[in-house]
Amino acid sequence: MGENLTLLTDLYQLTMAQAYFQSRRAGAATFSLFVRTYPQNRSYFVSAGLQDVLTYLSELHFDDTDIDYLRSKRLFADDFLEFLQTVRFTGEVWAIPEGRLFFRDEPVLEITAPIIEAQLVETFIINQVQLQSLIATKAARCVHAAQGRSVVDFSLRRTHGSDAGLKVARASYLAGFNGTSNVLAGQRYDLPIVGTMAHSFISSHEQEIDAFRSYVKSFPHNSILLIDTYDTLAGARKAVTVAKEMAARGEKLLGVRIDSGDLLPLAREVRGILDEAGLMDVKITGSGGLDEYDLSDFSRAGAAFDSYGVGTKMGTSADAPWCDMAYKLVEYGNRSVVKMSPGKRSWPGKKQVFRCLDKEGKLLGDVIGMRDDVFADAEPLLKNVMARGEITAPLPSLGATRELFLQEFACLPQPIRAIRKPETYPVEFSPRLQALRAEVERDVLGKR
Amino acid sequence: MGENLTLLTDLYQLTMAQAYFQSRRAGAATFSLFVRTYPQNRSYFVSAGLQDVLTYLSELHFDDTDIDYLRSKRLFADDFLEFLQTVRFTGEVWAIPEGRLFFRDEPVLEITAPIIEAQLVETFIINQVQLQSLIATKAARCVHAAQGRSVVDFSLRRTHGSDAGLKVARASYLAGFNGTSNVLAGQRYDLPIVGTMAHSFISSHEQEIDAFRSYVKSFPHNSILLIDTYDTLAGARKAVTVAKEMAARGEKLLGVRIDSGDLLPLAREVRGILDEAGLMDVKITGSGGLDEYDLSDFSRAGAAFDSYGVGTKMGTSADAPWCDMAYKLVEYGNRSVVKMSPGKRSWPGKKQVFRCLDKEGKLLGDVIGMRDDVFADAEPLLKNVMARGEITAPLPSLGATRELFLQEFACLPQPIRAIRKPETYPVEFSPRLQALRAEVERDVLGKR
Repeated sequence: MGENLTLLTDLYQLTMAQAYFQSRRAGAATFSLFVRTYPQNRSYFVSAGLQDVLTYLSELHFDDTDIDYLRSKRLFADDFLEFLQTVRFTGEVWAIPEGRLFFRDEPVLEITAPIIEAQLVETFIINQVQLQSLIATKAARCVHAAQGRSVVDFSLRRTHGSDAGLKVARASYLAGFNGTSNVLAGQRYDLPIVGTMAHSFISSHEQEIDAFRSYVKSFPHNSILLIDTYDTLAGARKAVTVAKEMAARGEKLLGVRIDSGDLLPLAREVRGILDEAGLMDVKITGSGGLDEYDLSDFSRAGAAFDSYGVGTKMGTSADAPWCDMAYKLVEYGNRSVVKMSPGKRSWPGKKQVFRCLDKEGKLLGDVIGMRDDVFADAEPLLKNVMARGEITAPLPSLGATRELFLQEFACLPQPIRAIRKPETYPVEFSPRLQALRAEVERDVLGKR
Repeated sequence: MGENLTLLTDLYQLTMAQAYFQSRRAGAATFSLFVRTYPQNRSYFVSAGLQDVLTYLSELHFDDTDIDYLRSKRLFADDFLEFLQTVRFTGEVWAIPEGRLFFRDEPVLEITAPIIEAQLVETFIINQVQLQSLIATKAARCVHAAQGRSVVDFSLRRTHGSDAGLKVARASYLAGFNGTSNVLAGQRYDLPIVGTMAHSFISSHEQEIDAFRSYVKSFPHNSILLIDTYDTLAGARKAVTVAKEMAARGEKLLGVRIDSGDLLPLAREVRGILDEAGLMDVKITGSGGLDEYDLSDFSRAGAAFDSYGVGTKMGTSADAPWCDMAYKLVEYGNRSVVKMSPGKRSWPGKKQVFRCLDKEGKLLGDVIGMRDDVFADAEPLLKNVMARGEITAPLPSLGATRELFLQEFACLPQPIRAIRKPETYPVEFSPRLQALRAEVERDVLGKR
């Protein structure tokens, strides 16, 4: 980011910090980040956001201007503000790497640090991991629904602000998108950038075909013509004319885009017009309010689209714009703790998630256990990615993360990947963890 | 922002710019920003985002690193890249000021500039104005539904990234919220910052009452105790004990917060427990997944809450996480233009919006007219806020904008403000504008 985001937190993180500081509660706390329930039609999540979390933790510090601002609120004691100036993140982080699948109740990240540090970072961590995992999950659904057709990110204008625009481009690429229209994201994350033309380009010319000719003159080998401004089939015929003019010059029209109307029949008719003119290799791109439900229907109908631009509904995760991701205290000092609020019961203690595969490598089910549980033949998913405030090993490249995701996703059974009414993936709790929760809850009920 | 966001745009804005540049199309273009349809249960919008748009336009420029990045894509011609280095925004902006109400089809902003400049800025403008107006509208609904009870923003952890976190805090304050938990937003926009405590603060202590005592020791005059971690009514009784201890020391408990369970009956019972102990002035705050539908139901039931913390569903505009805001070319050179794609017909030409009030100052209806239409006794809403790339007058303070909003909102008839199934506000098109559209559409159909 460049800017210091340490103050991008909830005020109560700072007031609680002062109370901890003044009562000298400096024990190590473990917090666990997990999702309590699946949004509708969701049955898995794709881990994303860890890179930003680790950068943030590495850079955490209060500037003088931050301290001055806090002092001006007349809420905080001078000795506490002096202490804040020295705060850095010195703890450890265990996390399920980006690109891996995770499921309900599974900690995607666990932090152990002095309680003030571990508490202070809650807001930013949820803010980033919730968004990025939500979008990576939505994008994975789009890629799956497109059944091999290419999908690219057109969402920037409707993402919630600039940071979301960047994170959506990255998270969707991680989940299998082939590129983004977002130029800054392309620059920042080294993503393929893609684009066609807008309706305004057409309507700024008196004649549609003049607009086509002007554009292909500038991009003789990279043009995708937008053909729905006035009448899609008439537009397709003009594209044919221009494509033939290009061929005569040794150039090549890449494709056409349809952005409105009844897309499925239009694509079929446009394919017919192109094929009849011998332009079998001119591609058709569809766009305009598409999501995974549309793409799934299109795939089932054998749509004539070669690729899709997916925008608003992916970039806002429109059918599920948030999920119930929580960051809960599970251990303080050496004491395991739980929350027992209605509908918000939590699991105590440091954890590990174990993934079991069948002989073909298909995902069979997960076990959420205690950190030191041992399950032969199951893969422990949480890795120690930060120790004493330092990143333990370089993170994999985004390209490698994308490959990792695509490989694992292909091993998730089909009914769990379903776009509508997916089956639930089996997640169990280890016997030791179940015994621990029962014991801690008994203890709490006894003491209250 | 600090960072240069010029590349935060769609690639096609740059490819179209090159086509315009190479074909020497440098005429002035006017684009109009408006919403095509209301999301569910919406019948008005609150203008927000103009300040960021004007800052962005003032600072628009391509850095050397931007140009180097674009050159590396092998899409752009050298003379075009040289031209890009000189690009600044030199146009004019007309806008409905922040805090004013606007309605479907009404241009909230119109830009006239050389077409390359006017086109390039589309993505950022929609990105910011769509989000901020959407959130201001959602927040206005929450404030209205709370019927005089105070509402504050707790959404940061679930907003879509850091930029959205900041913009949501600002937009919700603009629309009548009384503060935010977001400390960085408080610093940046001079907003009241608010906070209580988290469940983890309670569960890190062995006994709930010890947590209460520890917190009020640090904040003897600013404490709101969270009472639902284990059992809300038992928590309320412990809060009474602590409040009496505080009173004996000359301190004062501000309030208690309930964050889970069946809020309405719990609040009533907690009010009873507090009142019975003589603590009539200890306030009750409600939170936990609340939105305007809940607040409206609570108001109707005469809820015992004094204030609400509203988070996720406001900060993501969860029931309508996007709206159909478009930025359309309406004039190029001296020619008015339209788009005729199915469901996306647009209105040509530079416009003005006229607001008509009755004798008591209530909003009667609006007329969308041509920029030079004249309607006696109606207020023209679009103001010229930028000319030749310069802001024409200092923008009002956020506090003044908030006042402006609250005053106008109070003059919107009740059925249009309804939380569920609101009535539609009357918006007409002026006779001259209707005639122009008919003429331009005939012209397009003739030429195609």
